[in-house]
Amino acid sequence: MSTEMNIEEVQASLDRSPFISFMQLQVVSIDQDKQQIALKMPMRPEFERGAGTGQWHGGAIASLIDVAGDYALVMKVGGGVPTVNFRTDYLRPLMNTDLTATATVRRAGRTIAVVDIDVTNDEGKLCAVGRGTYLPVVG
Amino acid sequence: MSTEMNIEEVQASLDRSPFISFMQLQVVSIDQDKQQIALKMPMRPEFERGAGTGQWHGGAIASLIDVAGDYALVMKVGGGVPTVNFRTDYLRPLMNTDLTATATVRRAGRTIAVVDIDVTNDEGKLCAVGRGTYLPVVG
Amino acid sequence: MSTEMNIEEVQASLDRSPFISFMQLQVVSIDQDKQQIALKMPMRPEFERGAGTGQWHGGAIASLIDVAGDYALVMKVGGGVPTVNFRTDYLRPLMNTDLTATATVRRAGRTIAVVDIDVTNDEGKLCAVGRGTYLPVVG
Amino acid sequence: MSTEMNIEEVQASLDRSPFISFMQLQVVSIDQDKQQIALKMPMRPEFERGAGTGQWHGGAIASLIDVAGDYALVMKVGGGVPTVNFRTDYLRPLMNTDLTATATVRRAGRTIAVVDIDVTNDEGKLCAVGRGTYLPVVG
Repeated sequence: MSTEMNIEEVQASLDRSPFISFMQLQVVSIDQDKQQIALKMPMRPEFERGAGTGQWHGGAIASLIDVAGDYALVMKVGGGVPTVNFRTDYLRPLMNTDLTATATVRRAGRTIAVVDIDVTNDEGKLCAVGRGTYLPVVG
Repeated sequence: MSTEMNIEEVQASLDRSPFISFMQLQVVSIDQDKQQIALKMPMRPEFERGAGTGQWHGGAIASLIDVAGDYALVMKVGGGVPTVNFRTDYLRPLMNTDLTATATVRRAGRTIAVVDIDVTNDEGKLCAVGRGTYLPVVG
Repeated sequence: MSTEMNIEEVQASLDRSPFISFMQLQVVSIDQDKQQIALKMPMRPEFERGAGTGQWHGGAIASLIDVAGDYALVMKVGGGVPTVNFRTDYLRPLMNTDLTATATVRRAGRTIAVVDIDVTNDEGKLCAVGRGTYLPVVG
Repeated sequence: MSTEMNIEEVQASLDRSPFISFMQLQVVSIDQDKQQIALKMPMRPEFERGAGTGQWHGGAIASLIDVAGDYALVMKVGGGVPTVNFRTDYLRPLMNTDLTATATVRRAGRTIAVVDIDVTNDEGKLCAVGRGTYLPVVG
């Protein structure tokens, strides 16, 4: 029996987490063959760096990166995949835009998985990148 | 004229940011000589990984690391210090506890600053570590 | 006057460094439009983890990643570009093979540049990845 | 039976690796209780960035960081401990000096270990820092 999740199951799994639910993440697309998932995150006032600036705080961007990297694996194994560590690089300010994170599995080994995450703005411009290491669940 | 901030000024600066304000960060201590700041973050329902578990989501921990690292520099220069990149390592699950992040400047150069951040639980046990690179503001 | 280097100039620049010269790096290709460079590194006995195993030590792989990331920028600006920090992830053991590192600039800003580096074996299999931050030279 | 190594056993283990042997690493001290090891690395012409400059190439520094972090664990478990990933931050140029790397285990869990590595020059000044994740050997 396959443990792969479809787009509705991934969305339902995201929505079950209070933290992710607060982030209002929406699944844009999943591709099990490419081991890739895209998530969208709308601005909300609590995520602004400075009041009324429309600028995303870096912590919200890092949170998106962590979740997107995680779910590129979760959607495959059907369960929780703890983050070991991850790196966030900020390339450009993100202002007055939704965020889209596209996470791609670079390696899913027996002991360790590595995922790359690109974050783009509404114009598709690359604004932040992440790289995370996760512990794959042994079924 | 010194640009160093005292504890009330640091707290006021934190509170002005909607994102940080939502995180309810409290300054525990600052030490300008040691270039060290400690911030406390209480649990709130929106930060739980799973509903009712009392477990912190990793994204909230990463956000705390970013802010603490940043403010170890902000309290010195008196203004914004953009994050270049940072790394978060999760060492133990954080459950049913406040978080305390202690950030220590390892190097504040002319072009780049590096800060280490330790995150402990209520018992003082080390549960996560961060390391961030920041662009110091040229006065 | 352009500061862009051609393939012979990049090779000559690599060869001038004792460390890189010892690594015996060869430029495979450069693409200024894609901001991409590929470097090849042959095994030598000093780079083995265990004697006679044919397995690369991780330190040699990390060194290759640092140099490849650096030269994706050097070939553009025509001079030294200091590394701020970099991360190395090992995905598979590298044994009895040359290494090829392909470095691609993800962002070359005014203050900070970020480069991704993929390391493959003779069969083109991805075995390690790097991500580095560099300080672009101001001309 | 303990698997802990004494200083002579650690030195002998280092010397058996062609790569580490080429680096001429010497154990300065080990402390099993503190989970800390210090290694010294002398300059050799092959490690210079530019010929005759006396400046260390960053790749050699990163290699030292990887090995020191690894051996903070190896000395405990008595066998190989693969590196998952590591980060290197350069804080100051290292010129005309030996390097000393002091590696301290921050967490040695069942599945993942995290080690911090500080690199100082002959005057004890902090010049680079590393943080590595390793897979502890299950005995």
